[in-house]
Amino acid sequence: MTDSIDASLVHAPIHASVHASVHAPIHAPLHAIDLIRKKRDRGTLTEAEIRFLVAGAASETIPPEQLAAWLMAAWLNGLAAEEIRALTVAMRDSGVKFDPHRPGSGLGTGLGTGLGAGLGKGLSKVAVDKHSTGGVGDKTSFLVAPLAAACGVVVPMISGRALGHTGGTLDKLEAIPGYRTALSLEEFEAVLVKCGASIVSQTPALVPADRVLYALRDRTGTVESPGLICASILSKKLAAGLDALVLDVKTGSGAFMRKREDAEYLAALMVTTAEAAGTRTVALMTDMSQPLGAKAGNWIELVESVELLRGERKAESEDLRELSLILAGWMVYLGGQAESPEAGYARAEAAIVDGSGLRVLMEMIAAQGGDVAVLDDPDFHKPGATLVVEAWETGYVAAMDTTMLGWAVQRLGAGREKAGEPVDAHAGIHFHARRGSFVETGQPLATLYATTESMLAEPGSLLRRAIVFSETAPAPVPLVSRVFTLAEAEALLHQHL
Amino acid sequence: MTDSIDASLVHAPIHASVHASVHAPIHAPLHAIDLIRKKRDRGTLTEAEIRFLVAGAASETIPPEQLAAWLMAAWLNGLAAEEIRALTVAMRDSGVKFDPHRPGSGLGTGLGTGLGAGLGKGLSKVAVDKHSTGGVGDKTSFLVAPLAAACGVVVPMISGRALGHTGGTLDKLEAIPGYRTALSLEEFEAVLVKCGASIVSQTPALVPADRVLYALRDRTGTVESPGLICASILSKKLAAGLDALVLDVKTGSGAFMRKREDAEYLAALMVTTAEAAGTRTVALMTDMSQPLGAKAGNWIELVESVELLRGERKAESEDLRELSLILAGWMVYLGGQAESPEAGYARAEAAIVDGSGLRVLMEMIAAQGGDVAVLDDPDFHKPGATLVVEAWETGYVAAMDTTMLGWAVQRLGAGREKAGEPVDAHAGIHFHARRGSFVETGQPLATLYATTESMLAEPGSLLRRAIVFSETAPAPVPLVSRVFTLAEAEALLHQHL
Repeated sequence: MTDSIDASLVHAPIHASVHASVHAPIHAPLHAIDLIRKKRDRGTLTEAEIRFLVAGAASETIPPEQLAAWLMAAWLNGLAAEEIRALTVAMRDSGVKFDPHRPGSGLGTGLGTGLGAGLGKGLSKVAVDKHSTGGVGDKTSFLVAPLAAACGVVVPMISGRALGHTGGTLDKLEAIPGYRTALSLEEFEAVLVKCGASIVSQTPALVPADRVLYALRDRTGTVESPGLICASILSKKLAAGLDALVLDVKTGSGAFMRKREDAEYLAALMVTTAEAAGTRTVALMTDMSQPLGAKAGNWIELVESVELLRGERKAESEDLRELSLILAGWMVYLGGQAESPEAGYARAEAAIVDGSGLRVLMEMIAAQGGDVAVLDDPDFHKPGATLVVEAWETGYVAAMDTTMLGWAVQRLGAGREKAGEPVDAHAGIHFHARRGSFVETGQPLATLYATTESMLAEPGSLLRRAIVFSETAPAPVPLVSRVFTLAEAEALLHQHL
Repeated sequence: MTDSIDASLVHAPIHASVHASVHAPIHAPLHAIDLIRKKRDRGTLTEAEIRFLVAGAASETIPPEQLAAWLMAAWLNGLAAEEIRALTVAMRDSGVKFDPHRPGSGLGTGLGTGLGAGLGKGLSKVAVDKHSTGGVGDKTSFLVAPLAAACGVVVPMISGRALGHTGGTLDKLEAIPGYRTALSLEEFEAVLVKCGASIVSQTPALVPADRVLYALRDRTGTVESPGLICASILSKKLAAGLDALVLDVKTGSGAFMRKREDAEYLAALMVTTAEAAGTRTVALMTDMSQPLGAKAGNWIELVESVELLRGERKAESEDLRELSLILAGWMVYLGGQAESPEAGYARAEAAIVDGSGLRVLMEMIAAQGGDVAVLDDPDFHKPGATLVVEAWETGYVAAMDTTMLGWAVQRLGAGREKAGEPVDAHAGIHFHARRGSFVETGQPLATLYATTESMLAEPGSLLRRAIVFSETAPAPVPLVSRVFTLAEAEALLHQHL
């Protein structure tokens, strides 16, 4: 029964599976648990490891608790630049993508997408988009998309809905009867070929990894991570096959990132990451210390935009006009249709004057099923009740808490607290005073629009809390405070190392 | 349509729900997301917050991804002493508990559970248990439970199964035909009343929060956190209604915590936490730089234990005898049946000599359905194949990698890699040499037991890799290197602050 063995048997190499249980193997199939531990222990994941995680998220083969643990480890220990790039690219590629340059698309092949490249070569249709980190009254999409398209670039814009205190481009467009945001990629392409611009919603097949990861981040306190935010924003934008991208990163009381340094860091991170992923990108730091333009809501934002495209000018909308032209100017420049951003600005302004921008918007709305006739009637959507909030002091409007104003707009019915809730097309706020305005007691500050009287009191109180008066005029804040091209973005990130 | 309002309406206090969306409310119902953020941001959770998390885990009303994110935040940011205590107590109380002192239980009411308290008062049945962090050949439960019970304390021992490289008390007991580990709490109580000791498995109703949290920790890389380990171990032990607890914390090559400082920190943490939860507790740091006793497996560990209880003495089992008497001595002392741990040791040794310890074990086995007759036949379980590994050098056994030896035992069929796998009763290793033994080439080092020849080669190779020879004798390692009473545990934790 007892069996003595010789040394050669004892020395015999043991099966790999025994090694596997005793020591972690070096070249093994990837396991989520190992990638969690690696990030937990401050390691840097390889591109293949990031791809594995993202594929597991998209296919839901990695369970939510493992993704959540990895996200928290990433939130706390941070992500390296190469991890953020790999995450962005893997997420971008996690589902169906739009290719504006596919042979036979009718959009032509984009050649030369660098700063100024493609200029004068007569090659049609470089794909350029703009993304904003979101703010109250921010409706530049309705201006920059048609203006840039009118100047010869193609703008395949995949946009989002209102959530929390900021509005949603799609909700605003859906104030137009018939307007369809849920186009197939074929329909999207057809609208782009016809009009040069199209604004649609994300399809479930596009960037599925972000849908899974974002929902998890929302539930697990892991939203506010620069690397995760960067990858989430860029993956969705870059899945539209962009050659170039202009980022509008807000700073001030209504910005997603409150601290200026945080917002600048995110801007620089997005520029370097998108460039590393092959898309020419610039980021503008822009003011959100007050609402952009005079109106915040859904229908009323469209009305303000159309007025500007018609060439009408009102003092209350000048900041919106200026920022839209600056952004469109960068889009036209990066799209190779102008020698400089300034020259792009001039071209975009000309597209207002000659009506070509308005024409693109109307064609786009019609192509997506919208009834363009309603845009001739500013009162097409009428609120059931309104409230004028008057100044309770005489003095300068010194500060506007834009986040609180955003909540007021949301509470009026224009936004939503939870995904899936309906919004009221007519709800919103028309601001009659701006930061720096001098007002006298009793002078109207803003008019609130809602469905019923009972919906007005709370937003009115929020608005009142959001505005601060002073005896002296506040220092002016520049509309665009800084521009991050690749070199400037790299310089800022270098300082952070 | 426009509706002007006066200042009193604008000033009217707004509804709390608006506050809730704008600023986090102070006295609101608890939400998991807020507790995740709090721990992420290095906050300390209140007792109520911990209770909310644990109740949500037990009832599975908090989803796995939220628990996982909280666990990772706790792993990375650590838990404060009061959080660990609250976690332990909340987990202990998360399901059904055993109460050895319930009126009418037949166990009497334990009075005075302090060091030496209750001594000589003639009050029956203080409930005392021992817990080991696990090691190879660690079979002290079969000795300390009957010996302590024979000395007048009651030992309600809820135990575990083999997993990974360490063996399981329940698997060993189940080598006895008929032995039932899955008793109801009523049956458990009845065995305790009759025999003074009972060794059973955890029921699903006991500490459900730990079952959920441990499974999550296992999948999310959050096992190795002192606070989480402490709460997991203690909650299960304290749910048996213990008045006192003796902890056997292993150090050395086969210990769960490899670094001595980590093991000492865990020991001190468990002592202060259990004491704060109302259970008198002591922790002994004991040696796991080699297997405990001469045998590691299932049936053969029982055989070795019964031999010692019969009063047989073999040099190869002396360390097991000594440690068992020390642990039982502490149990008897904390249980108020001796004036000091040393006096407890003497009483436990007397219970070997007079056969009362063996009698308790046999009665317990019989009461739980086991066939005690088989314990008279060491060959009741016979391996199908054996292998003697001989020394390949002449010299001293300088080191034994006990973790690797544990894997060898597991691979022989005595353990399992995944929960639910069967184990072989006859499998294991009989060690003929110990750390410090002088052996000559060809002299038997160990005999391996398995079901078939083919199962012997890999464990043989692991064993060979686990043993290191040297020309000089290694420095001896004390069996018990340190004892943490409450004061000593507090002193060590104070150093860590």
